[in-house]
Amino acid sequence: MNILIRKSYVITMDDDDNLYPQGCIAIKGDTIAYVGDEESLPVGFVPDEVLDGSGMLALPGFVNAHTHSAMSLFRGYANDMPLMDWLAQKIWPLEDRLQPEDAYWLSMLSIAEMLMSGVTVFADMYMFMDQTAKAVEHSGIRAVLSRGLQGPDSRSEQRLMENRKLWEEWHGGAQGRIRVMVGPHAIYTCDAHYLRRCMELAQQLGVGLHIHLAETRTEVEEALKRHGKTPVEYLESIGFFNLPVLAAHCVHLTNHDMDILAKYDVQVAHCPVSNLKLGSGIARVSMLLERGINVGLGTDSAASNNSLSIMREMTFAALLGKGIEEDPTVIPAKQALKMATLGGAKAIGWSQEIGSLEPGKKADIVLVKYDAPHYHPAADPVTHLVYSGRDADVDTVIVNGKVVMRKGQLTTIDLERVYYEVEKIKRRIMGGI
Amino acid sequence: MNILIRKSYVITMDDDDNLYPQGCIAIKGDTIAYVGDEESLPVGFVPDEVLDGSGMLALPGFVNAHTHSAMSLFRGYANDMPLMDWLAQKIWPLEDRLQPEDAYWLSMLSIAEMLMSGVTVFADMYMFMDQTAKAVEHSGIRAVLSRGLQGPDSRSEQRLMENRKLWEEWHGGAQGRIRVMVGPHAIYTCDAHYLRRCMELAQQLGVGLHIHLAETRTEVEEALKRHGKTPVEYLESIGFFNLPVLAAHCVHLTNHDMDILAKYDVQVAHCPVSNLKLGSGIARVSMLLERGINVGLGTDSAASNNSLSIMREMTFAALLGKGIEEDPTVIPAKQALKMATLGGAKAIGWSQEIGSLEPGKKADIVLVKYDAPHYHPAADPVTHLVYSGRDADVDTVIVNGKVVMRKGQLTTIDLERVYYEVEKIKRRIMGGI
Repeated sequence: MNILIRKSYVITMDDDDNLYPQGCIAIKGDTIAYVGDEESLPVGFVPDEVLDGSGMLALPGFVNAHTHSAMSLFRGYANDMPLMDWLAQKIWPLEDRLQPEDAYWLSMLSIAEMLMSGVTVFADMYMFMDQTAKAVEHSGIRAVLSRGLQGPDSRSEQRLMENRKLWEEWHGGAQGRIRVMVGPHAIYTCDAHYLRRCMELAQQLGVGLHIHLAETRTEVEEALKRHGKTPVEYLESIGFFNLPVLAAHCVHLTNHDMDILAKYDVQVAHCPVSNLKLGSGIARVSMLLERGINVGLGTDSAASNNSLSIMREMTFAALLGKGIEEDPTVIPAKQALKMATLGGAKAIGWSQEIGSLEPGKKADIVLVKYDAPHYHPAADPVTHLVYSGRDADVDTVIVNGKVVMRKGQLTTIDLERVYYEVEKIKRRIMGGI
Repeated sequence: MNILIRKSYVITMDDDDNLYPQGCIAIKGDTIAYVGDEESLPVGFVPDEVLDGSGMLALPGFVNAHTHSAMSLFRGYANDMPLMDWLAQKIWPLEDRLQPEDAYWLSMLSIAEMLMSGVTVFADMYMFMDQTAKAVEHSGIRAVLSRGLQGPDSRSEQRLMENRKLWEEWHGGAQGRIRVMVGPHAIYTCDAHYLRRCMELAQQLGVGLHIHLAETRTEVEEALKRHGKTPVEYLESIGFFNLPVLAAHCVHLTNHDMDILAKYDVQVAHCPVSNLKLGSGIARVSMLLERGINVGLGTDSAASNNSLSIMREMTFAALLGKGIEEDPTVIPAKQALKMATLGGAKAIGWSQEIGSLEPGKKADIVLVKYDAPHYHPAADPVTHLVYSGRDADVDTVIVNGKVVMRKGQLTTIDLERVYYEVEKIKRRIMGGI
């Protein structure tokens, strides 16, 4: 299937920041064949479908670099509570009642929301990850999946086995749309021995590690008490950063921590909304960027966000950075858009194939309607998108060369069915709560 | 004209926080006649139009308690700059080129954006305010208008005259949809004598004062240097707070400042997005609320936001409060929604007539489509709205009993004409910039 997108304002996010105000994009199968002015479109290209992109921005699909998609069950459940009370009293008891197949529908709800807001790939960490993989396969989205790992306990070796099995069955699966990482949850839920077991597995499989890091002050204080080291220093001391690492949150860091992250090229998933909502704090992202650390954006789960919009995280990231530093010049619009696209792709280890619109890369593309009062008068589209952009302006979404949303309608997901199944699960698990 | 809204989930925001999951609202002329279950609808009520509210939330229109609507010209122009550079080098030179009639179309663009995101009333401060008044009259929105006042200089008495004339011509005008306040810009643009002239005018007219207050650290530092007092202490010392005051921003306050605001019942317009974007900082709103100070929400102008969505400000207010205090229990969802509705109405001095859905109040009502992945699974609608709500879900908007947007289409504004006129103004004023 060949697709031609015509007459869009194309924001490539390539190394030269090329923009084509009247651009076109040619897609051959799952791959971008051409990006540029239509005059120079290769003559041999014959499209099966032509998408009229006039009045729209075309840009790389947004990357959600940290989420837990099956936690959509808990959206809007027990908000405005302290983190540990919320987990211990509300979330964990209910998670014990989850059946594996529930995770399929709960992930599908999250995938629907993500696609509708232009997210074309997400990095997940949770249980029942084979069910999430099936939802990824069926929906057409792209994902980097990891089994959430905690230990030692009676099931911790079993969990490692599940992460290995996930890799065996799904790494490179779904037409290459799925990759697998190893997912040690955090330093406060894994001991040093178990973290080393995770590192061994990642090394054997040749993949990276996805972990929560320095999310709360409590995490830092307990690490200092227990290990005499910050969480970042502690992970360095056990050689964790010798492997590729995707570190979610990174809210509470010392300057020395930041230097360590820079030294090992640790990838950061900044989750501004979740960090605010849980009262964790505000990450000093501009200080990370100054050190050359790569930063992507994550929503965390719908339980602590409560939605899964990377466009919204992008707006928050650009604004919060300025507010917390009291400096309007930091995190300019282009840098925020980069975090939401190419930076996120790099964070999840996939920037060779996605994150920008360039010939040879996979066709993960979003068309955004660009005709509403909040985009007037005409100005730099990147600025308008970052500071005024709305999820609902996402019109058409292509993943791996396939149209998964056309004019606001999902082509691969039956939304009514998803709502029905999710409400059924909620009634079963949460009853009259 | 009588309107009946049926089968909505009605969130009244009245003193008892009444909710009607299958509610109806009867409107007689410009006034709410009934809110509640349909069984109890007065039998004599005969609607001219029936709106099907099924699958929708019905709530009071959002209140934008601080903006400069004609500044929409500068949306997306010269972002990511320090405040004083931005004003002095970019905004002020261009403002000199504005013609009075420009303000009509520029205000109309802002009004269109506000109505489309469910804002039914705004408090404005700027020049050419009679043009904004005309746009309010024609569009059907509600507004509290004040002439921005600075002095002394050669034109400062003229500006006071304009504010008086605005009151004479427009206070109570547009079927009662317009009220007028007096708008001294700030303590750093008005001296004590001129502030007293503004206070005299407000007292003569029997209206309140709308002012920027404690927006930046620089403002506070200069006040301490010049007057030996914080901006709040300084205004108290000249008797400013003996009149009703709407104070925008209030970012940098001491505990003593907060006590003063509480003592005089000063009304605060919290503008979280603008404060972030200009690098001004993050207001400690939960500390204001703890002291019983009433807080509404404002967008500030599209030049520093860059949009005019109170739903977005509501989300930011709820999240930022938690993040800055590192406490997830502060500013719960209901409190955020209150700031966006009744709190805003109180802030602009209009809560006797608007801000909640109650018989006898003016019919300013928003219907929000409540059927998207980000609202699933079912949970408390207030929570879903505050943490996941999207402008684009606003379906129908009623102001003063008149439908001004129906199923996403504005009924009073020709958007294409507005875009055309605004682009023409931009070309004339900003040329090839």
